[in-house]
Amino acid sequence: MTPPDMNLGTKSPQGYDPATFRPLTFHDAVPRFLDGSDTPRAYLERCLEVIAAREPVVKGWVTINESGARAAADAATSRYKSGKPLSTIDGMPIGIKDLLQTKDMPTEQGTPLLKGAQTHADSASVMALRQAGAVILGKTVTTELGMSHPGPTTNPFNPEHSPGGSSSGSAAVVGAAMVPATLGTQVVGSVIRPAGFCANTAIKPSFGAIHRGERLGFSQSHIGVHAGCLQDMWSVAFEMAQRAGGDPGHPGLYGEIAPRAAAKPTTLIVMESEGWAQTDGVTMGAFERILGQLSDAGVTLLRRKDSPLIEKFEEAIGDSLALCRDLCGYELRWTLENLIERFGSGLSDSMMSRLELARAMSIDDYRLAMFRRDEAQRAFAALTPLADGLISLSSVGPAPVMDNKLKDSGVSHTTGLPSFNACTSVLGSPAITLPLLAVSGLPVGVQVIGQRHADAALTGTARWVLDHIRPVVA
Amino acid sequence: MTPPDMNLGTKSPQGYDPATFRPLTFHDAVPRFLDGSDTPRAYLERCLEVIAAREPVVKGWVTINESGARAAADAATSRYKSGKPLSTIDGMPIGIKDLLQTKDMPTEQGTPLLKGAQTHADSASVMALRQAGAVILGKTVTTELGMSHPGPTTNPFNPEHSPGGSSSGSAAVVGAAMVPATLGTQVVGSVIRPAGFCANTAIKPSFGAIHRGERLGFSQSHIGVHAGCLQDMWSVAFEMAQRAGGDPGHPGLYGEIAPRAAAKPTTLIVMESEGWAQTDGVTMGAFERILGQLSDAGVTLLRRKDSPLIEKFEEAIGDSLALCRDLCGYELRWTLENLIERFGSGLSDSMMSRLELARAMSIDDYRLAMFRRDEAQRAFAALTPLADGLISLSSVGPAPVMDNKLKDSGVSHTTGLPSFNACTSVLGSPAITLPLLAVSGLPVGVQVIGQRHADAALTGTARWVLDHIRPVVA
Repeated sequence: MTPPDMNLGTKSPQGYDPATFRPLTFHDAVPRFLDGSDTPRAYLERCLEVIAAREPVVKGWVTINESGARAAADAATSRYKSGKPLSTIDGMPIGIKDLLQTKDMPTEQGTPLLKGAQTHADSASVMALRQAGAVILGKTVTTELGMSHPGPTTNPFNPEHSPGGSSSGSAAVVGAAMVPATLGTQVVGSVIRPAGFCANTAIKPSFGAIHRGERLGFSQSHIGVHAGCLQDMWSVAFEMAQRAGGDPGHPGLYGEIAPRAAAKPTTLIVMESEGWAQTDGVTMGAFERILGQLSDAGVTLLRRKDSPLIEKFEEAIGDSLALCRDLCGYELRWTLENLIERFGSGLSDSMMSRLELARAMSIDDYRLAMFRRDEAQRAFAALTPLADGLISLSSVGPAPVMDNKLKDSGVSHTTGLPSFNACTSVLGSPAITLPLLAVSGLPVGVQVIGQRHADAALTGTARWVLDHIRPVVA
Repeated sequence: MTPPDMNLGTKSPQGYDPATFRPLTFHDAVPRFLDGSDTPRAYLERCLEVIAAREPVVKGWVTINESGARAAADAATSRYKSGKPLSTIDGMPIGIKDLLQTKDMPTEQGTPLLKGAQTHADSASVMALRQAGAVILGKTVTTELGMSHPGPTTNPFNPEHSPGGSSSGSAAVVGAAMVPATLGTQVVGSVIRPAGFCANTAIKPSFGAIHRGERLGFSQSHIGVHAGCLQDMWSVAFEMAQRAGGDPGHPGLYGEIAPRAAAKPTTLIVMESEGWAQTDGVTMGAFERILGQLSDAGVTLLRRKDSPLIEKFEEAIGDSLALCRDLCGYELRWTLENLIERFGSGLSDSMMSRLELARAMSIDDYRLAMFRRDEAQRAFAALTPLADGLISLSSVGPAPVMDNKLKDSGVSHTTGLPSFNACTSVLGSPAITLPLLAVSGLPVGVQVIGQRHADAALTGTARWVLDHIRPVVA
């Protein structure tokens, strides 16, 4: 098999091979912007070439604002020429998940009901990106309102397969090396899962770390960053948080603009969650080989049976999918009822099923769900002295085929089961997925998970893992 | 002086006299709806008559949806006829502060920039009111974006004076007996202060108690209820919270649909806050007569000097105006920057001054402000075992004249100083204002304040105060 040249995107994808996959990166282009041997405008044009070649199959974009992007890239080019870039991401082309508002493009949220809808405003994160000089290139496909009904996007490594969701386009266009970074959002499993399916390096930061702007209606949603490498991922997250702040009432992302140096973890806890029993044997075998490498490198691994505190934690997160269904459903009712009132119909069957479940909830049902979330967060915090972090798969296997009918907890998951993600969304903990596995020619992510507000330290852990653990092909 | 017939609104107001002022109430009309001797439609028509008579001077409404209201009132009339009202507020005409979205009317937010702006959606609280059968009559005037630049509304007891703000129209139209209840919002002093100026009975509930819908961008704003009486106030708040829930991630309003019976407090703490030193002598003298009555009735009053915990609390809230300026300014930047980007100009000078202050803040400045708010909340919680609640004035005196130039903490307060309110907004504590004082022919409120989530119990305290304390005229 000839290794595909993923970076130029000139051939059809022939499957994922971590040995040959070269994601698009930005930080390493900056010295050339400064010495004049490259420019943000030329960088953008290369992105547009890859998009032209691969978008007909990947279908990751809803809207692309070429003229606006070119103007922004030219402005960045001028700033580098005068030696005064605005930030570490000045001139970086970025795609925005189409749940988030952009002043210069519609915000359709993955539903035909909002086709062409203009909000005339930037979401807080998008405004912060522009303030940092980033080039807002376009809007990426989301599932319907960020839930499970899929859009047209295909997996960049095999178009028969899903890219994952709800940040389908954001994951796929990074996996296809069209742009170095995109914004996603995660309320259940919408950043880490698709990022894993598409070989992204991605962060779902601590709850509240990056201002959600108009999207504050969920009590556990997060803005995340999909990128081709760890450094770009961190730069985008940190530059945004410095400018937009965190969610109102939250301290925002802590750390420094320079990504943390590699830091070897002494101890990691292997998190099982609901995903463990749902994982296929090949994927589990590949993951155990990663764990074996960690052990060989001298990292102590704690398993569920090694501590009653870990067992208690696993019990506390053991129903996270149903908990997310209840919390998010109750919180989404208001938005859905407004859409139904305005348009009469047009929501997917799967969305209507969610709404029916939510309509049956009382305020006390919601209070109980919040209490259970709080219990899970306390059980997680109790692990702090035991380990530097947790490690798990990012999904129960590679991306499912496009026309699957996966269901769990009464709701459909055609973009894959979020069984390893619902728990970290419930916990509000930072999670970083790394493209460490290839299973049946498709990427599968491995995630490291930290305590709340330990995002920067977790980046150091992730760097050490990338530097010392060889990807596994199975 | 002939006492004005405030209830019919057929004469110009001649000043406020608590002995003769009869606010409009709703709960006492319900038995007549059920026995057929009155109907919600007839009740609405009486409201419209008062509005026709007084609105030319009061100027409390931005939009009135007469046809929609009549249709809703007719539907409620049918439900009562069949003995099946939807709730305790079925058929109640309610005004909505024009910061909150309504599907059938524009949401202009007190700025000419958003003239005629349609959102095609109901805010969560508005949707909940409709689900409970309430008649959404119209939108009430707010100051510019809920901050300090005033709208055209005048005080219903003297048109030379401000109605207060930012819930200017919501306070004024209840004070003018045009409707039995309205929704307001408070981020600094926007419910309790104007309610006090307009002789409303009003609640700013515990932080998070009533879902703010699209208005979640402030970390300490609240939806409140202005009403003509305590029972209607509570019914509106509770019926909303049961249906919309609280803010995402918050448990919502606790209690029962029946308002608590009068409950005599054993001990109340007299809260000074920043307002104490700013209060005029006449108002302070009148308030001390209220305190004297409480003392005579056997209620123990604790003053600042009676406990080091109270002294510590007063110190912790002693800079609340500046703290609100910083927290709210930082949180409002994003909204303001989007408006400036979209429209170029059109914000008031006072709003631009706020923005300049906020632009100079770093994310660490915001974190420090949150830390100070947390300190104040802890100092407040430490008072829990000492007293059943707190009592203070709702404002530093009666409503100022319309063209005043009050300033504090670097921002203007043309609708009156929120010096007794910034603290309770910072604390997230429930506060209920009662129309117990008349100073120079204008109403001044007295507020009782409870610990967070003690809203229902606080209603029992407020009932006892209303039943046992005579209003004071000074």
